[in-house]
Amino acid sequence: MKRTLGTCYYPEHWPEEIWEADARRMAEAGLTWIRIGEFAWSRLEPSPGDLRFDWLDRAIEVLGQTGLKVVLGTPTATPPRWMIDRHPDMVAVDVNGHPRKFGSRRHYCFSHEGYRQESDRIVTLIAERYGKNPHVAAWQTDNEYGCHDTIISYSEAARDAFRLWLKARYGTVEALNRAWGNVFWSMDYLSFDDIDLPNLTVTEPNPSHTLAFRRFSSDQVVHFNKRQVNIIRAHSDAPISHNYMGRITDFDHFKVGDDLDIATWDSYPLGFLEDRVGADDAHKRTFMRQGDPDFQAFHHDLYRAVGRGRWWVMEQQPGPVNWAPYNPAPLPGMMRLWAWEAYAHGAEAVCYFRWRQAPFAQEQMHAGMLRPDNADAPALIEARQVADELRNAPDVSAPQAPVALIFDYEADFAWTTQPHGAGLSYFQLVFDTYKALRKIGVSVDIVRGETRDFTGYRIVAAPGLIYMPQDLKQALAEANAPVVLGPRTAARNADMVVPVPLPPDMPGLEVTVSRVESLRPDMPMALTGGGAFSGYREELETAADVVLKLETGEPAVVRQDHLIYVGGWGDATALQRIYRPLCEEAGIATRELSGGVRCRDTDGFRIWTNYGAEAAETPAGRIEAAGVLFEKL
Amino acid sequence: MKRTLGTCYYPEHWPEEIWEADARRMAEAGLTWIRIGEFAWSRLEPSPGDLRFDWLDRAIEVLGQTGLKVVLGTPTATPPRWMIDRHPDMVAVDVNGHPRKFGSRRHYCFSHEGYRQESDRIVTLIAERYGKNPHVAAWQTDNEYGCHDTIISYSEAARDAFRLWLKARYGTVEALNRAWGNVFWSMDYLSFDDIDLPNLTVTEPNPSHTLAFRRFSSDQVVHFNKRQVNIIRAHSDAPISHNYMGRITDFDHFKVGDDLDIATWDSYPLGFLEDRVGADDAHKRTFMRQGDPDFQAFHHDLYRAVGRGRWWVMEQQPGPVNWAPYNPAPLPGMMRLWAWEAYAHGAEAVCYFRWRQAPFAQEQMHAGMLRPDNADAPALIEARQVADELRNAPDVSAPQAPVALIFDYEADFAWTTQPHGAGLSYFQLVFDTYKALRKIGVSVDIVRGETRDFTGYRIVAAPGLIYMPQDLKQALAEANAPVVLGPRTAARNADMVVPVPLPPDMPGLEVTVSRVESLRPDMPMALTGGGAFSGYREELETAADVVLKLETGEPAVVRQDHLIYVGGWGDATALQRIYRPLCEEAGIATRELSGGVRCRDTDGFRIWTNYGAEAAETPAGRIEAAGVLFEKL
Amino acid sequence: MKRTLGTCYYPEHWPEEIWEADARRMAEAGLTWIRIGEFAWSRLEPSPGDLRFDWLDRAIEVLGQTGLKVVLGTPTATPPRWMIDRHPDMVAVDVNGHPRKFGSRRHYCFSHEGYRQESDRIVTLIAERYGKNPHVAAWQTDNEYGCHDTIISYSEAARDAFRLWLKARYGTVEALNRAWGNVFWSMDYLSFDDIDLPNLTVTEPNPSHTLAFRRFSSDQVVHFNKRQVNIIRAHSDAPISHNYMGRITDFDHFKVGDDLDIATWDSYPLGFLEDRVGADDAHKRTFMRQGDPDFQAFHHDLYRAVGRGRWWVMEQQPGPVNWAPYNPAPLPGMMRLWAWEAYAHGAEAVCYFRWRQAPFAQEQMHAGMLRPDNADAPALIEARQVADELRNAPDVSAPQAPVALIFDYEADFAWTTQPHGAGLSYFQLVFDTYKALRKIGVSVDIVRGETRDFTGYRIVAAPGLIYMPQDLKQALAEANAPVVLGPRTAARNADMVVPVPLPPDMPGLEVTVSRVESLRPDMPMALTGGGAFSGYREELETAADVVLKLETGEPAVVRQDHLIYVGGWGDATALQRIYRPLCEEAGIATRELSGGVRCRDTDGFRIWTNYGAEAAETPAGRIEAAGVLFEKL
Ligand SMILES: [Zn+2]
Ligand SMILES: [Zn+2]
Ligand SMILES: [Zn+2]
Repeated sequence: MKRTLGTCYYPEHWPEEIWEADARRMAEAGLTWIRIGEFAWSRLEPSPGDLRFDWLDRAIEVLGQTGLKVVLGTPTATPPRWMIDRHPDMVAVDVNGHPRKFGSRRHYCFSHEGYRQESDRIVTLIAERYGKNPHVAAWQTDNEYGCHDTIISYSEAARDAFRLWLKARYGTVEALNRAWGNVFWSMDYLSFDDIDLPNLTVTEPNPSHTLAFRRFSSDQVVHFNKRQVNIIRAHSDAPISHNYMGRITDFDHFKVGDDLDIATWDSYPLGFLEDRVGADDAHKRTFMRQGDPDFQAFHHDLYRAVGRGRWWVMEQQPGPVNWAPYNPAPLPGMMRLWAWEAYAHGAEAVCYFRWRQAPFAQEQMHAGMLRPDNADAPALIEARQVADELRNAPDVSAPQAPVALIFDYEADFAWTTQPHGAGLSYFQLVFDTYKALRKIGVSVDIVRGETRDFTGYRIVAAPGLIYMPQDLKQALAEANAPVVLGPRTAARNADMVVPVPLPPDMPGLEVTVSRVESLRPDMPMALTGGGAFSGYREELETAADVVLKLETGEPAVVRQDHLIYVGGWGDATALQRIYRPLCEEAGIATRELSGGVRCRDTDGFRIWTNYGAEAAETPAGRIEAAGVLFEKL
Repeated sequence: MKRTLGTCYYPEHWPEEIWEADARRMAEAGLTWIRIGEFAWSRLEPSPGDLRFDWLDRAIEVLGQTGLKVVLGTPTATPPRWMIDRHPDMVAVDVNGHPRKFGSRRHYCFSHEGYRQESDRIVTLIAERYGKNPHVAAWQTDNEYGCHDTIISYSEAARDAFRLWLKARYGTVEALNRAWGNVFWSMDYLSFDDIDLPNLTVTEPNPSHTLAFRRFSSDQVVHFNKRQVNIIRAHSDAPISHNYMGRITDFDHFKVGDDLDIATWDSYPLGFLEDRVGADDAHKRTFMRQGDPDFQAFHHDLYRAVGRGRWWVMEQQPGPVNWAPYNPAPLPGMMRLWAWEAYAHGAEAVCYFRWRQAPFAQEQMHAGMLRPDNADAPALIEARQVADELRNAPDVSAPQAPVALIFDYEADFAWTTQPHGAGLSYFQLVFDTYKALRKIGVSVDIVRGETRDFTGYRIVAAPGLIYMPQDLKQALAEANAPVVLGPRTAARNADMVVPVPLPPDMPGLEVTVSRVESLRPDMPMALTGGGAFSGYREELETAADVVLKLETGEPAVVRQDHLIYVGGWGDATALQRIYRPLCEEAGIATRELSGGVRCRDTDGFRIWTNYGAEAAETPAGRIEAAGVLFEKL
Repeated sequence: MKRTLGTCYYPEHWPEEIWEADARRMAEAGLTWIRIGEFAWSRLEPSPGDLRFDWLDRAIEVLGQTGLKVVLGTPTATPPRWMIDRHPDMVAVDVNGHPRKFGSRRHYCFSHEGYRQESDRIVTLIAERYGKNPHVAAWQTDNEYGCHDTIISYSEAARDAFRLWLKARYGTVEALNRAWGNVFWSMDYLSFDDIDLPNLTVTEPNPSHTLAFRRFSSDQVVHFNKRQVNIIRAHSDAPISHNYMGRITDFDHFKVGDDLDIATWDSYPLGFLEDRVGADDAHKRTFMRQGDPDFQAFHHDLYRAVGRGRWWVMEQQPGPVNWAPYNPAPLPGMMRLWAWEAYAHGAEAVCYFRWRQAPFAQEQMHAGMLRPDNADAPALIEARQVADELRNAPDVSAPQAPVALIFDYEADFAWTTQPHGAGLSYFQLVFDTYKALRKIGVSVDIVRGETRDFTGYRIVAAPGLIYMPQDLKQALAEANAPVVLGPRTAARNADMVVPVPLPPDMPGLEVTVSRVESLRPDMPMALTGGGAFSGYREELETAADVVLKLETGEPAVVRQDHLIYVGGWGDATALQRIYRPLCEEAGIATRELSGGVRCRDTDGFRIWTNYGAEAAETPAGRIEAAGVLFEKL
């Protein structure tokens, strides 16, 4: 497939007189896709029922006539101020019980039926009007579900909907009491109407309660999105997408993705390095102007899975942003590198956010492809280079990778509910595993927790899957590849209760986790021969072979046939010691990558990227700082 | 007295079919005491008035028939969900004015009369039914008053009760205005009904106001507990206890203890090391799997005083817990060591919490004596060893120690109200003094602030007693032992006002604190010859002998006859320099203890414990890591 | 002018019998001014309408008869408790929506019209009664506007007043929507009544919204103060002052000052060092007992400008205070040094806070000139020395300094609204510039942002002026002295929108800031030849001369004719490299000052102060620790 470029454009921000010049300049720069409309509700419907679609008609026409393709967004992330008058209780409520007021964006609770109907109404109006428009080539629902911590709401609407959700799941309140162990601390309920949201409790609430509320909150997003999708589909054949945000794990992206045609995500490497990668200061200094060398790749692989192969970068950082603690400018070349890295992972399109820097409002310090004074900004210059390169580039596509790494949002809900040690998170555990594989040059497919067919994979990695249904256990037990389990594998049942027999209780693997402990980060437990478990480890009773031992003599990593169990949180060295021999065994070539150099295999090409601030050597030759290198395979 | 072991058991958590096997296994392990019932309200009264005591009857019978003795708890720490419908305003309110909701435990305000009557009702029902039961050998009121910061409540119930409390104390609002100095900042009240709770004020409230509210809040606990005690006593001759929690200083444990027969406390050495000992990271690393070597001993001595000689450990950490920032497993041997250390300080019984690890709800990661799958957990194995040792051990008892160390909850309220420097706390000051004495091998009795007879003590230590009634001054002035005072001795009157003449105004001691200052922790003031004052110091005008000087030449520690005044917060070296010569003078043998080795004298034995992770030498011979050594005296 | 001393006195705190002795002792110590009354409302009007001015009459008489001059304060910072019954909604509301309750001080919202009328009423009563009193020689309005974060209130009164303020400023809501760019994220309003206060929004509000609310909040203070001033003026010819607090930038001190005759401020060097100077720990250790060597001077120069030449220190730290994280005692001599430093900067009077330490209420740990037991405290002894020195000292006055440094409160509002990088603040930027000049011995005039005439200045420094009206640009372009601009000069228009052409768009200076970035503090960008930009820097397109370059080769500081533009936040070395050559060029003598030595030129004298804890050498001779040296010019 031919890869493409795009941008995000806000015709409502600019005088109509300059739209045509803008469009021409976009096309000349080699852009294909223009996303519009997703924050425009107050201009489409300035007051209730007063519909003004004419300007949007003209904007789409101008873009379309210039040969550009429009991605049309539904404006539901920014309901206008008058909406609050119609539905004063539609706003989300924070963990302290404070309403989250109008004045920015995402000021709605997913559980508020009144707002859901408003969403239906505006989406219907837009879908009817533009469903057959020849220039509207794709759709986007809402914008960045979950950004600004907007999934979990402690509103009355959420409470009422949660009760119904619980009733549907458990049938009777007695069943719920039993499933949650509410006998503990006399927390038994007499009716579903007794059940409150798990905030402001005296000490922590029942983890079964918290996990149920997180699952419910995720389902509310799926439902909200599905309603929009159903309406759009009824009027349009164009594919439908949503733009996910980096490291948001409060809802199940796969389940939302099941209703979409394309997954997209918003990639801000420098902002993320500062505010969500989880890196230490030394790492942040090293990659201040480049971003973490693995974080984007991880999400690329994640969204390729969420989109069942079809995915984009919908917003690509174009320069300094406004929202991180520190907002430096990228190293020259990075805006090209990021695009090529996305293509290497199979992205159909990369769109820079945004066309022209807005001089006003919240993102006035967020760079664009144009400066506010219309001059070319560096992003435009680098995008032009990518466009040139794409013209002559071969099609690239993402073949099945040799390694499958399972990522399961419900596991993240459960770890968040009960990390057991300060700072432990499922996302970080999976990301650490991903980094370990990427640092030895191995391409990875991320697969969802519902996967049962692992055909074609030569290694399956399933760290931290705290709940594992029986059929997944069976599928892994029968897999034709080494399967890496642990820590915390199957440590809870579906209701967040410790199962008996004790975990992992895995067919074909004689291992029992007899006791677990969380460790101070400054007190890792060393492995004989190098590496350590850090933060968390398990005591194993086992008849399996001991692959790695702790210096205490206790088993750390054990193996029986193709099943490997890792009884702790491995540091980078430990993970290398686990995965490198498995790669050898599986015939997966590995290489030692250092600094910011990484590679990813596509059909026919290995694409090298250098996140380092210095040039480096690769097996395929020298690669410049912020450089991209194409190695023919 | 023969020391005993026990555990905490929740028959309501398990099928009735296994109760008998559990009981047999408890007895075989050498346990004597089984605490039950304290969280079972929702099973005793599933809906209002629907009483179901039959299962508890049978549980007690099964335990009793096996020869076990029952400690029966009142279930008032966990009122069921329906109670909130009856008394929606019974929950406590946090400092921000948010109600503290149902969903965990301790969700009641001590001042709510409606809930106090419900407490009367359920306690009456239980006391009537089990008061004469031959297997119920002791009682426990409620559970861990103050845990989860539950003493201070900013509810309307608390506000109204506070007004009445103030009226009872001050008689007229004019008297209160005078006593508090409300003329300052025009804070005069016209009526007791004008007085609000001291939260959410623009800047700090009047310290007299805050202190009064802390005293009131403490009294509410005393009252709540006393009502339960009175009811139980009317129906039973068995002793009544409450299980206090480590380093909770928000209410006066002595005053609650006055109404009880036995004081018990809940000892979680590893959890406490991480979350409340006040240790630095190096100390936490050293003792990660053992706990602080002095923190348990301090509480043992404290509760011996609270229980007027009769005290237990009601909950002993049995393995990793669930609630600290990090939850490691104890070093093998520690669960035996902790028990012997308790006996060395005079504990009648040590009960491990809990019998079987609950697979569900908030404490599913809290170890038990059994694993959730019924296998022996390490705590059971070590408890069996202790039981064996107890069979052949001589009786131990705790004789009067040579040193009395005063601990006064009201002083802690006052310091908390006005620490004067960030991080300064009365508890820490007293604990530092305790540690200094224990590190030179000296056994200590903790005595309450109301003590007036110091007969038999060879040293009396009274650090930080910020308010000192005249008769205490007199008693100390007339004591037949060196008395160590300061800093902040008698620095406030009973209403938190600076007295004139300036403090300490102590008969027989010509010292005036002319000025005080708090210091950055990184700017200690060195003493000539070693050690320093850190955090806090006082300028002294004195005609007494200067015992220790600051390097500035100013007096630091002064003495007149038997009265010693310490004009600052001594570091470990300074405290050694103060107390070691006093011990020599008083004929108290001292020894230099290092690392984690400590000792405690009982009648006939010196019991050595090693909190170190390595073996060590003692005058009585080599002691293993986590070891216990009995030296005949 | 002859400089004077004074103190703050609370006759209502003490028995009337001792007033006369107090007054005599004040006079004997050489004090002239006694400030009284500012917290006495509950004694002037114990219940609504029950006026009791008799005691105040007598107190003023006693003081006056002793030859002392009274500064009479209005008591509006501490409305009595009964006021809350009359106006339950008069209290301010914090950012979380919680009312800020009675129980300390400053518990009013500036926007509450009911309370403003109460303020009018009490001020009228006082002004009528004492307006012609011969002993009342000056007035003070309220007390420390803004202390305890009391400018910004999210009350309903504030919200309603804000809407009116916006209507007055923008005329129509359409104009406001346009000016703020509310089209972004559909934030358009249909009516001024739609506009809420910018708290509790889901993510950050529109910066134009926040800035407007900060301006409004500042204006409310100006209005509140002006009403008091107008009333007093109608009854009295004595000058009117207000006592500002250190580093409070939430309202425009200049605008409040426009209505006053004298500006005063409250100088607490040790408290400020710990809680607001912004120093690192090493600096805090070095100056723990002296205070920052530049912070007081900065405020002296600031309030000389606010008072249009007439200014005092109304509250001078007299010893340890009660409110900082740590509260050490000053080095002997500092209370004299601080006074002389104030005189060196032109203070008419220095008043120590307070006469006698209060033994009760919130400030019982705040030193006074007398101890609570009436003994002389160190402040009294040092004040006597100053009084002696003043008797023989020549008149000192503050001539125009060679350098003007612009300080603009609105710029601070804008930077606070949008720092762009964590920790960046306008106040710190201006203060860094001030320190750089002071460390080379240069005296500075602080001038307000409204200044247009820079006649007489040999250098004009205008760092960080983020909004610059056209006439200011013109004035600076036409100045007869080097003008130092940047960073962020004119980076926003009056409504917080990025202007096009891009900033600074300065006549006569061919520089365009093409892109800006904020930097991690641990990643400064080095300048060729020494120094660095830290935290923030700008990419410059320029035809001007490059004065300093970054090591990347990019221009850092550029100059065209007399206009200098600094494209980043210079560290101390960078600022030296910018200002030292300019001083040479302008014929301003500089000297290298080290440690805590500083100097300030008055007419006829250079006054040296040594904030160091060790003696030091100066060109004028040796200066003791905490010493003052007078060098005749
Ligand atoms: Zn068309
Ligand atoms: Zn029986
Ligand atoms: Zn709140």
